[in-house]
Amino acid sequence: MSQSSFKASFRVAFVDTDGAGVVHYSNYFRFFERTEEEFYKHLGFDFTDFRKRGLWLPRVEAFCQYKKPATYGDLLEVELVVEELKEKSAKLSFKVANEAGDLLALGYLVIVVAEKQTGRATQIPKDIVERLRPFAKQVL
Amino acid sequence: MSQSSFKASFRVAFVDTDGAGVVHYSNYFRFFERTEEEFYKHLGFDFTDFRKRGLWLPRVEAFCQYKKPATYGDLLEVELVVEELKEKSAKLSFKVANEAGDLLALGYLVIVVAEKQTGRATQIPKDIVERLRPFAKQVL
Amino acid sequence: MSQSSFKASFRVAFVDTDGAGVVHYSNYFRFFERTEEEFYKHLGFDFTDFRKRGLWLPRVEAFCQYKKPATYGDLLEVELVVEELKEKSAKLSFKVANEAGDLLALGYLVIVVAEKQTGRATQIPKDIVERLRPFAKQVL
Amino acid sequence: MSQSSFKASFRVAFVDTDGAGVVHYSNYFRFFERTEEEFYKHLGFDFTDFRKRGLWLPRVEAFCQYKKPATYGDLLEVELVVEELKEKSAKLSFKVANEAGDLLALGYLVIVVAEKQTGRATQIPKDIVERLRPFAKQVL
Repeated sequence: MSQSSFKASFRVAFVDTDGAGVVHYSNYFRFFERTEEEFYKHLGFDFTDFRKRGLWLPRVEAFCQYKKPATYGDLLEVELVVEELKEKSAKLSFKVANEAGDLLALGYLVIVVAEKQTGRATQIPKDIVERLRPFAKQVL
Repeated sequence: MSQSSFKASFRVAFVDTDGAGVVHYSNYFRFFERTEEEFYKHLGFDFTDFRKRGLWLPRVEAFCQYKKPATYGDLLEVELVVEELKEKSAKLSFKVANEAGDLLALGYLVIVVAEKQTGRATQIPKDIVERLRPFAKQVL
Repeated sequence: MSQSSFKASFRVAFVDTDGAGVVHYSNYFRFFERTEEEFYKHLGFDFTDFRKRGLWLPRVEAFCQYKKPATYGDLLEVELVVEELKEKSAKLSFKVANEAGDLLALGYLVIVVAEKQTGRATQIPKDIVERLRPFAKQVL
Repeated sequence: MSQSSFKASFRVAFVDTDGAGVVHYSNYFRFFERTEEEFYKHLGFDFTDFRKRGLWLPRVEAFCQYKKPATYGDLLEVELVVEELKEKSAKLSFKVANEAGDLLALGYLVIVVAEKQTGRATQIPKDIVERLRPFAKQVL
């Protein structure tokens, strides 16, 4: 199955770094989510559209493997792939590289669609599935 | 008028520091708010109690003067004083010191009580005023 | 004296918001600094250039006045003006607006140039002064 | 092999929450690290001791599984176990529960000891190994 990826770029701000002079490891998860947000925006929707339908998108798993540190001023390129598209959840994978093309980090998020009121997992709305499908490596 | 202060302590975490090896200046505002939260908790209420009444507590002004940097592992003592207690707002001042007693920062927050729906400023609920009054330097 | 301003734009990420559904007040100080960083980059230098000369740029004062809340997805436009350029310090002012042109926040930072080793304030390097001058409202 | 765990508690601050009204998923990694910091402090050392020896502790893997959301004001209890103690690295696991005893999150960090200059992994200093060993589930 053919599949496309989505890319977003972020300049490392000073506040993203810690006393070791590198981007704090927790901030990669923030770059992941900012990429996810830009990806949805590119597809024509956002978190607010889920809220309006009484839904939200809790993360159920988050993982990151760190290869090389990023520092202040680096331009990070984050590549997102929809690894798995399931009935009620999706697994998004992320690759973070710097301008020199060095791979800095690899990771993923497993995100479920849930009803805000009950907390129960529910089906991804059809119109959203349609927009995600062209980016999905696997539709399960 | 006699007046008491409230104190809270926070250990500086590594993530609070930046690439200059000191606590990032924006994080003092987070320590201010965490002190405010502990102060309210000490008085028997919290932000959630405001939300239940359809109210919230937007900050309208925030100021901090930095005297000396704080570093990883420092135990910060933050002292809060209710500088002014008005009908619809309060001014809280903060002093941040380290364990050695060095003054690190001074600042204040001006907080207004507002209706969440309309955004309009409204009176501080009476029971809250009663609990804040003993800590107020000035009641206007 | 004629004087120019510098503008930078930032999309509000979900992590920038808090439980009140608006951008946390401390994050405006992060947007201020990110604007400062882009301004310096535009002028051809960055924080790292100061570090290489044994200098750093501690903030000595930070202030923000909040007019209207920003929410998730807003595109913030931050306008920076060099209010005062002194021998050893500068005062930068910031205006934050949303896409609709609503003024959301106003603030400033007073920044000093200091020797990293001794902590003492020192003169702003001449080449930096030259690059800041065209943007300065007042040179003192 | 007998093995002990270490526990630390953290009050959820308002700034820890996001627009969904729950603790932002990236902040669990900050609670993990703050627990790690308190654990080291309990054992009599900290990140600064590593820096003084020319070492640092980059994270090479970070994982978290989210079971139930935490909200503003919750008192989080984080339990740390040294899952694996190797020559140059350690795997720390974390369990996060609230006051009611609900399991909120499970995760781990893989941390390596590296030379700050070269970036190369190196042996965990012997005195540190001795202090970690009583908490280690597996010594490899």
